[in-house]
Amino acid sequence: MRILGIDPGLAIVGYGIVDYYRNSFRTVAYGAIETPAGIDVELRIEKIYDTLMEIIDKYSPTDMAIEELFFNTNQKTAIAVAEARGAILLAGVKKKLLLYEYTPLQVKQAVVGYGRADKQQVMAMTMSILNLQKMPRLDDTADALAIAICHAHTCGSGIKQYYNEKKKKLL
Amino acid sequence: MRILGIDPGLAIVGYGIVDYYRNSFRTVAYGAIETPAGIDVELRIEKIYDTLMEIIDKYSPTDMAIEELFFNTNQKTAIAVAEARGAILLAGVKKKLLLYEYTPLQVKQAVVGYGRADKQQVMAMTMSILNLQKMPRLDDTADALAIAICHAHTCGSGIKQYYNEKKKKLL
Repeated sequence: MRILGIDPGLAIVGYGIVDYYRNSFRTVAYGAIETPAGIDVELRIEKIYDTLMEIIDKYSPTDMAIEELFFNTNQKTAIAVAEARGAILLAGVKKKLLLYEYTPLQVKQAVVGYGRADKQQVMAMTMSILNLQKMPRLDDTADALAIAICHAHTCGSGIKQYYNEKKKKLL
Repeated sequence: MRILGIDPGLAIVGYGIVDYYRNSFRTVAYGAIETPAGIDVELRIEKIYDTLMEIIDKYSPTDMAIEELFFNTNQKTAIAVAEARGAILLAGVKKKLLLYEYTPLQVKQAVVGYGRADKQQVMAMTMSILNLQKMPRLDDTADALAIAICHAHTCGSGIKQYYNEKKKKLL
């Protein structure tokens, strides 16, 4: 399967595309969609949606894995990020990707092996698993790759049933 | 101008379309987009987006007026509603509508004349201003009509400058 991992945001959406077959990974592409703070939020959302549609067209992933949102910070930011995430989900469903959501805890567990791993450990493991020589420029991109790995490991082991159920439901 | 008022939500999106010319209103259409709780959130978001695109095609509004989100309730609901709102904003920008956001306080002030009006007063004034014989079935629809009135009153008096600025920016 080809997985599009997404770290949602309004200013920066990290993305990472990896192939996962027979327990091995191949990194296809990664980067970030960035939107300027000076323009109206609806135009930023449009940019995210349009760019993501292009990325999906270009790389044809089968699955989208996206981080769930949790907020302790300020409400205004929280709402704006969730709005952007709505447009990201819409892009996924419009392109008929199978969508999966993971919590930060699930990502850490799947990538490093335990849920209390710190950011540095997750990044180091992500680079090692994907055989990257250099860290991506933005943390958001590295996070997106970690989410893609999480989905590969999760699907590869155990919740295959759920995966097939979901596929059936969408067809 | 023809205004599409929106009360955002995930389960129910209220909408109301009114014409406003020379200080008088004409009600064009109103209703609600409802999505079932049993399906995945991304499919609910898609239904909202697709239906809204059809409504915009059918009635060709020039402006979208949408309520701002504030949350004191549970975070999970808040995030889901904001995600739906992101898809609503995207529909507006894709159809090149001018988008305006109003707080509940602004809506009450513009419709009833003071910000501490209760729900019943807002509904009664909405019906009176729009000459409706019967209350819409859902509160969300009535709210959407109130938001449309708020935009008409706000644009008709004072912030015209901002309105034109916004128009210029989008062209």
